[in-house]
Amino acid sequence: MSTTAELQAKHAKYVLTPWVAQGGLSAPVIVRGDGRYVFDSDGNKYLDLGSGLIAVNLGHNHPKVVRAIQEQAQTLAYAAPSLFNDKRAELAEELVSISPWKTEGARTFFTTTGAESNDDAVRIARAITGRQKILTAYRSFHGSTGTAIALTGEDRRWHGEPGGPGIMRFWAPYPYRSPFYASTPEEETSRAIENLERVLMHEDPRRVAAILIEPVVGSNGVIVYPDGYLPALRALTEKHGILLICDEVMTGFGRTGSAFGSTRFDVVPDMITFAKGVTSAYLPLGGVMIRESLAKTFDARALPSGHTYSGHPMCVAAGLAAVRAYKEEKLFDRAREVEGWLRSGLTALAEKHRIVGDVRGVGAFFALEMVKDRATKEPLVPWHGEGGLGVMKTFYAELRKRGVYTFGKFNVAMIAPPLTVTKDELDAGLGAVDAALSALESTL
Amino acid sequence: MSTTAELQAKHAKYVLTPWVAQGGLSAPVIVRGDGRYVFDSDGNKYLDLGSGLIAVNLGHNHPKVVRAIQEQAQTLAYAAPSLFNDKRAELAEELVSISPWKTEGARTFFTTTGAESNDDAVRIARAITGRQKILTAYRSFHGSTGTAIALTGEDRRWHGEPGGPGIMRFWAPYPYRSPFYASTPEEETSRAIENLERVLMHEDPRRVAAILIEPVVGSNGVIVYPDGYLPALRALTEKHGILLICDEVMTGFGRTGSAFGSTRFDVVPDMITFAKGVTSAYLPLGGVMIRESLAKTFDARALPSGHTYSGHPMCVAAGLAAVRAYKEEKLFDRAREVEGWLRSGLTALAEKHRIVGDVRGVGAFFALEMVKDRATKEPLVPWHGEGGLGVMKTFYAELRKRGVYTFGKFNVAMIAPPLTVTKDELDAGLGAVDAALSALESTL
Repeated sequence: MSTTAELQAKHAKYVLTPWVAQGGLSAPVIVRGDGRYVFDSDGNKYLDLGSGLIAVNLGHNHPKVVRAIQEQAQTLAYAAPSLFNDKRAELAEELVSISPWKTEGARTFFTTTGAESNDDAVRIARAITGRQKILTAYRSFHGSTGTAIALTGEDRRWHGEPGGPGIMRFWAPYPYRSPFYASTPEEETSRAIENLERVLMHEDPRRVAAILIEPVVGSNGVIVYPDGYLPALRALTEKHGILLICDEVMTGFGRTGSAFGSTRFDVVPDMITFAKGVTSAYLPLGGVMIRESLAKTFDARALPSGHTYSGHPMCVAAGLAAVRAYKEEKLFDRAREVEGWLRSGLTALAEKHRIVGDVRGVGAFFALEMVKDRATKEPLVPWHGEGGLGVMKTFYAELRKRGVYTFGKFNVAMIAPPLTVTKDELDAGLGAVDAALSALESTL
Repeated sequence: MSTTAELQAKHAKYVLTPWVAQGGLSAPVIVRGDGRYVFDSDGNKYLDLGSGLIAVNLGHNHPKVVRAIQEQAQTLAYAAPSLFNDKRAELAEELVSISPWKTEGARTFFTTTGAESNDDAVRIARAITGRQKILTAYRSFHGSTGTAIALTGEDRRWHGEPGGPGIMRFWAPYPYRSPFYASTPEEETSRAIENLERVLMHEDPRRVAAILIEPVVGSNGVIVYPDGYLPALRALTEKHGILLICDEVMTGFGRTGSAFGSTRFDVVPDMITFAKGVTSAYLPLGGVMIRESLAKTFDARALPSGHTYSGHPMCVAAGLAAVRAYKEEKLFDRAREVEGWLRSGLTALAEKHRIVGDVRGVGAFFALEMVKDRATKEPLVPWHGEGGLGVMKTFYAELRKRGVYTFGKFNVAMIAPPLTVTKDELDAGLGAVDAALSALESTL
């Protein structure tokens, strides 16, 4: 057995960690998970208030999914996607049962990751419509493969530029910092739609294949759109024959208190891209669900993509067990209960800590936006600032000291536990958040 | 329990299958694997002469890898890649031990698929060099994500066009159909290098970040470059400060009779991209290995990519067990023994069947190229022809009737069993190939 120091040294020597400079990098060596906790190689325990990366919706090591993985491993680990597979068919059927297309039906093209799903959805939308342009929002993240990073509306895209052609961006609602100078949610929605109409007018809506949007903005700050925005966006796309693709990589599988965020916010999109929660991240799996009226386009024409691991037997077996667990344990409803706990608990913290400028969220998907000053709303660390997390590092370090893990981006911290979190676990976690906020404030 | 017909109907109704039109599609429902065989829902057994998609290098359900997956599933399924993980560090160390950089060292950025690996490798090469252009070969396949498909040199790319900027293509050797009108392997190599020099002269070598190449062309026909080509290519890239990236998604992990194809063909590249064989495809895992002298670029600068599933604990645990199994069972050497069996067996078939225009391969990676006429070399079905597999469908159907699975592209059929195949299993498989060739010939 290696010691923690040896493992950390080995990790730093041989592994490249995403998105950061590697010099001097270290982190706890996570070796075990159980329920809402992960454990490091020194036996320290961390409450997972970030669900990994907004992914472990069932909590860690759910026995039904673990068993499904173990059984599939000794039955069939892999077969080429040109051959049919029982679990793949069963999962695709289950997905329709929780989708916005229960009556119409839908087909799933399985991928391995959320990024691949967005890459493929865009290619598929172009093939279906014969149009080239794709509109996405600023302050979005859609993944880090070639097209997915070009679709992204924040700084991680800059590393992939110049990306592919034909991607245009618009501003979506952000009630706390309205890009439209709105003072009510209703005004935010109507102005956002007017803004989008102006963009379409200048891009020619007949040339726009699809609008791709996260129903709730994920890693760019858990921005919940005002009620009515997504339905109005849907109406606008229908008017122009533009496909609506919902990126549900974070919002899917109960995170917002419904199976999908589109359902929670009353829209029926044309495609849904998913990953993460479909297996509770126990194995890598993603996909593009396409409503039947559009999927049948590919009965006579070739589907324009493919992957070695499309519908990988291990991964779809994990997905099948996870989706059945969500349904059997009514976890989509349970996320609404968690929503109540989070909203009241975090609101109380905001009342106590002036550093918290905004509390927002839905389901088990919340965030705290930190500011230097509540009146000016000046961010505690600048968005897209060169200093990255800056003083927010103190917040995460203080949380970790108190046995809590989460993550965030610039001045926004995620509070998004597994949907299975208990009231007691969450109360303890929010206690640690309270203490970490105090510790951070004391350094400013 | 569903019947086979029910499962097939459900699959066709709910699942989209890669790269093909979906109308009337059906296939055996694969439910179990064991050694060199997969089994369908009617209990039919198929010898896997395609290793899935040139991926299941260990054969199906290798007990050590199955056990590692089962143990990891009950220990830790997922943790965010910003946190360290024991198995991730150990696998990255093992990879160096079989790499071309045993002395210098190397670091691995883990991805989930081969496509993601190529996407990332190109972005990393651009970041390291500050140059934009990437050169790839015609008749290459590099994956189906946004950049990977743009890098690809065959028809699957057409679905993704227009792709990203800055990707140029060159012709690499193809001894059976020389694009350089060469009559010997030596001439093929020297003319291919001259051709590449001319391309570089017209693109400005100072603007070229990397050349990305498969050490043996994979799905575009198992084209083995003449000895000396890859070393001459390496010398040319070194002369101009161009990075050499070997796409070892198919050639890695013993397929060519060495750990990596670059080693078998005597080149030390700057980066290796991998997937497939690293876990014997039991779980989705890919990565970019970067030699230490270049990886250290990212000590002070941010790595320009990241993925939710980078270094996924389940997938790296499977990879660790698989790499240890390759080493313990000396399977890279064993592939050289399989090479002998394949070369003599397939050469004998070519002597008997005039439809076989060329037998080529290395290690456990062979193909038969089918022609209408040996003198004119007219392909049995045209490359990039609208009819797709055309009469080759008969060949695969006849093989399947005889309990053998493999796959191919246009007029080239893959013969690439797991590295663990026995002489008896292979002899039986080649017997079926013999009979399927006769059946195909009788229809022409």
